[in-house]
Amino acid sequence: MRIAVELLPQGPYADTVIVIDVLRATTTAAVYLESGASEVHFACTLEEALASKAPGVLLAGERGGLPPAGFDLGNSPLEAQRCNLNGLTVVMSTSNGTRATHLTAASAKTVLLGSLRNAHATARRALALATEEIAIVCAGREGRVGIDDTYTAGVLCQHLISMVEAALDDGARIALDVRRQAAEPSALLASSAAGLALERVGLGADIPFCAEISQTSLVPTLVGRAGPLLRFAAS
Amino acid sequence: MRIAVELLPQGPYADTVIVIDVLRATTTAAVYLESGASEVHFACTLEEALASKAPGVLLAGERGGLPPAGFDLGNSPLEAQRCNLNGLTVVMSTSNGTRATHLTAASAKTVLLGSLRNAHATARRALALATEEIAIVCAGREGRVGIDDTYTAGVLCQHLISMVEAALDDGARIALDVRRQAAEPSALLASSAAGLALERVGLGADIPFCAEISQTSLVPTLVGRAGPLLRFAAS
Repeated sequence: MRIAVELLPQGPYADTVIVIDVLRATTTAAVYLESGASEVHFACTLEEALASKAPGVLLAGERGGLPPAGFDLGNSPLEAQRCNLNGLTVVMSTSNGTRATHLTAASAKTVLLGSLRNAHATARRALALATEEIAIVCAGREGRVGIDDTYTAGVLCQHLISMVEAALDDGARIALDVRRQAAEPSALLASSAAGLALERVGLGADIPFCAEISQTSLVPTLVGRAGPLLRFAAS
Repeated sequence: MRIAVELLPQGPYADTVIVIDVLRATTTAAVYLESGASEVHFACTLEEALASKAPGVLLAGERGGLPPAGFDLGNSPLEAQRCNLNGLTVVMSTSNGTRATHLTAASAKTVLLGSLRNAHATARRALALATEEIAIVCAGREGRVGIDDTYTAGVLCQHLISMVEAALDDGARIALDVRRQAAEPSALLASSAAGLALERVGLGADIPFCAEISQTSLVPTLVGRAGPLLRFAAS
């Protein structure tokens, strides 16, 4: 098995991809599904999200960390955890994560949303689905690499190489080095560019929640499309 | 002082940039100057290099690791070390390093060529020239991050933060983590994607030479342009 880590999305992808935007889109998408949403849809633009507004649909996401005008919810996993979303669809649009996911979905055979909270389950699921390559794609932040996503990619690599004989690319080796330098991710996430930006808009409380490793076995998995939106469901 | 590391060239750059292609362009460019070349010019394309052919000019570089047709020299620092180039100009064109350098030179105020061999001198020089930011730009390999360049960026960061109070971006923190995981770079360089590619074309002997840290105080510095070429001289 080949394991590749892209510290920023590049593509194209031939096989199984795990997208990571640990602060916060891929963390939060899983929590919406845990809170009962039947599906989470990823929209690239605010316009596409707003156009999908319908009964049974909630809009969630952020620009500059905060909920955009006309949206029902933000991109906070703590807020998502407090919701009862039974049977609803949540349409998400965020600054980095949902866009990176659209880029990977243009070519990948399988797309999973990974985070620290579902790291072990995501690694197992990717291994069950991949035939030759697992690409871990870090969303980064405004086109720059994020140490928060790189660290999370390293945690996933660690799980993967404990389960399978793998050829690691240079990106995977870099991610593992970052992981090995910090046993506990909470301070690293808080001091990352994404973490500092969250603190600045008063959302630092989300960070310790995003930093918990392997707390859930729910892995959002791409199950299809709805127009320009990507449909994710629990697997 | 802000210290930013780009694991792949992105830009734009407002201040001082150190370009790294440790295997091998930025290592070799310094050796050409040490071997007596008055200047090293970087050409983006083979055509631009070939068009610059003139008395007193040697063409050097590689595609796929090997010297292109019509070139006088390759991209090997060991070969460069054996040359007597007194007063000659060497025009270099390589697959990754010279292109990355052209990208940075489009906006940067100052461009230095960094490698492990001149790491300490390059850090000191950058610090003397920069007013607010030192950006360390890794060339990578065929559009993918290279752990060899990332490691070298980490060595430069280590020297820089030993000399100045600095704000590090996420890329710089990643590079430092990679550096801290391997005290000795030779094996890491040999097992990088770039190192393995060199081995495949029989040029693995260049790697231990490129892996020697702070052996020279020569820092190739952008001093001007000659048509489409970037002119570097010793500083």
